[in-house]
Amino acid sequence: MVVVRTEIIAVGSEMLTPAHVDTNSLYITERLNELGIELQAKSVGGDDRGVLKSMIADALRRTDLLILTGGLGPTDDDLTREVVAGLVGQPLEYHPEIFERIDKRFAARGLKTPEINRRQAMVPRGATVLPNANGTAPGLLVEYEHKLIALLPGPPREMKPMFEALIEDRLRTRAGSACLIRRLLRITGQSESSVEEKMQPLYAKWLASATMINTTILASLAQIELHLTVIAPDLDEGRRVLDAAVQEVQAVLGTDLFSTNGETMQKVVGELCRARGFRIAAAESCTGGLVMARLTEVPGSSDYVDRGVVVYSNQAKTDLLGVPAALIQKHGAVSEPVAEAMASGMARIASADLAVGITGVAGPGGGTPDKPVGMVAVAAAWARDGAIQTRVRTFQFLGGREMVRFQASQAALDMVRRWIMEDS
Amino acid sequence: MVVVRTEIIAVGSEMLTPAHVDTNSLYITERLNELGIELQAKSVGGDDRGVLKSMIADALRRTDLLILTGGLGPTDDDLTREVVAGLVGQPLEYHPEIFERIDKRFAARGLKTPEINRRQAMVPRGATVLPNANGTAPGLLVEYEHKLIALLPGPPREMKPMFEALIEDRLRTRAGSACLIRRLLRITGQSESSVEEKMQPLYAKWLASATMINTTILASLAQIELHLTVIAPDLDEGRRVLDAAVQEVQAVLGTDLFSTNGETMQKVVGELCRARGFRIAAAESCTGGLVMARLTEVPGSSDYVDRGVVVYSNQAKTDLLGVPAALIQKHGAVSEPVAEAMASGMARIASADLAVGITGVAGPGGGTPDKPVGMVAVAAAWARDGAIQTRVRTFQFLGGREMVRFQASQAALDMVRRWIMEDS
Repeated sequence: MVVVRTEIIAVGSEMLTPAHVDTNSLYITERLNELGIELQAKSVGGDDRGVLKSMIADALRRTDLLILTGGLGPTDDDLTREVVAGLVGQPLEYHPEIFERIDKRFAARGLKTPEINRRQAMVPRGATVLPNANGTAPGLLVEYEHKLIALLPGPPREMKPMFEALIEDRLRTRAGSACLIRRLLRITGQSESSVEEKMQPLYAKWLASATMINTTILASLAQIELHLTVIAPDLDEGRRVLDAAVQEVQAVLGTDLFSTNGETMQKVVGELCRARGFRIAAAESCTGGLVMARLTEVPGSSDYVDRGVVVYSNQAKTDLLGVPAALIQKHGAVSEPVAEAMASGMARIASADLAVGITGVAGPGGGTPDKPVGMVAVAAAWARDGAIQTRVRTFQFLGGREMVRFQASQAALDMVRRWIMEDS
Repeated sequence: MVVVRTEIIAVGSEMLTPAHVDTNSLYITERLNELGIELQAKSVGGDDRGVLKSMIADALRRTDLLILTGGLGPTDDDLTREVVAGLVGQPLEYHPEIFERIDKRFAARGLKTPEINRRQAMVPRGATVLPNANGTAPGLLVEYEHKLIALLPGPPREMKPMFEALIEDRLRTRAGSACLIRRLLRITGQSESSVEEKMQPLYAKWLASATMINTTILASLAQIELHLTVIAPDLDEGRRVLDAAVQEVQAVLGTDLFSTNGETMQKVVGELCRARGFRIAAAESCTGGLVMARLTEVPGSSDYVDRGVVVYSNQAKTDLLGVPAALIQKHGAVSEPVAEAMASGMARIASADLAVGITGVAGPGGGTPDKPVGMVAVAAAWARDGAIQTRVRTFQFLGGREMVRFQASQAALDMVRRWIMEDS
């Protein structure tokens, strides 16, 4: 499946701290994928000679293409050049023309070039020098035992233009014309293992087919993600194969499959509303505005969203939605009748076709034996033909406050989605 | 500084795509640093037996402590258990008590446990089983040639509690007594370079002092982050040094420094309201519920949040907040008078002490030459002594819809924060 066995190593101790992420590899991965090249691994190594040497040597054993970013600066900490030269058994040679370029860059800013920058003019014998249009350190390409090692500068503004101008074409000839295409599917209402079980026959079929489709399944909060990947001779063929695969998944999973191309739940619900000319509103207690924030996160959502309310206190539920105080007293604020009254009250005050009502215990405090943390009543109301119908369900969600709130918002949106789908 | 040679490997092909980042290692690094343990490298490996085997074997040669996250799920893709068992030369044994726990989890949700979940009850002989309070896959601790291998589940909500409850203490005995402590400070109302300039004298002073404080400055959306790090003989001494440093920063940056220990803006505003017995409410147009969602994300926020409204359409602004239609007609929905009327209307209907009103063009559509995308009017209202005072300001934010919405919500919360601070 991997056309060229490829790894990336980002060099720099700062990327081993809690606050920093190696983002270069994300950019490079995207570029590589477009060429049909998948990563088999990636790493971050600190500025330590022994560790770097071992990491690069190990990666070289596993790869045809190894991309290193960072560690090409002028200081003693910058070890990439030296370690690679040592591993491929070539001496470092001084290239005066590189130093001249660096010298000109400094001069242009009215500065004298520090002596230490001479390190950046050292090149392993036989390597190809990649001029750096946006910084001092040139990139380097080293061929070694039919493998290609690319040394690129760490700063993204230097690395990216160099990759595009000087690396991409060279890889294209190695990678062939194949391209790798992905499709992200999202599923609700099933556990990861249940999806996996239902998908087994498809997996088997796909693996046996000429165009192999690879799948990865991931349990995310309140949804399962299914990643389909295919390597195809060209983009059109790849898309055709994935479209057909998605149809097969749809046949197996039915309406539990809510997203066939990475769309979020709020986007899917919004598109359903738009297509049918519906308006949707939300009355939220424990989710505190999250459903509305998710719905309105989608560009153009003002076409189907007009208003919503957050009603944290009982008084607010009565004041803004007309939920009878007696109803709250009788059943408690976290109850199906109150959720229904919130949803239908919201549909009424918003003159909306659809509305959701959510009331629950998000935690960490506020739970009781009867109504523990994570218990949420979710209702939907549909106003049509002069009447309001409601649906309601009580969920017991697991996890902390943020997780309970997200799952409740997801359940509310999903309830509306399924109801619209059933109806069409 | 490296007390124990440590690496982390995150397992999962999805983390080798351009859209996913391994965040577990950031959390683990922070915890390890607190124990005085620094990472020497970290990696991400795909769900490929050969590659994983080679990566884990190589890392084992370099480390005393190897932490693996992910690949403990029930599917064929989940290879971590098996690969580690193979490398340490121990057979996998079935532990019925693990399966019983899994079975109970499914039963609690009214589901039947799929057969494939039996894989999660397989344990390399001699390994220590770490119960998973938040998911099916238990963690595992494997001792091998004086090295410790920890296998932790991939989902952060499962991994983090397990790390804290079951890993941290075990590592404390292995690590030395020096510890690395970080403090995250957050700043609004200044550019990164302006903060940097003001901080220069402090940097110089700190670097010259006995206990060196290291700083990293990072521009994040609508806030600047300042990370302070210190290596101290013990936690108390480290905290004392950082507390003193924070006071020095506070003297330099004043109220622009809103967070001295990683607190979010919503948490800071909430604490101010709680301390003064204020209630706060929000009337939101372009932010669509984001301010309310942020405020209510904080546990215990029902003490100071009671209600809020999302008023996307002009009609909703008039219906729910009493914003005069004539005012909207005269100034346009995105205008300072309308934002003020929203804030004061909200304070009134919520009987709140403080309320914000936000109206703007989040984009990508809807911009005009007069009112381009990113223009947002933010108002705050303070009801006291029988009258309502307002403040208002128009911002021109850069970036896409999500960025504009976040910046607008941040500006509104910050406006309230500064007003309360001035007043006290």
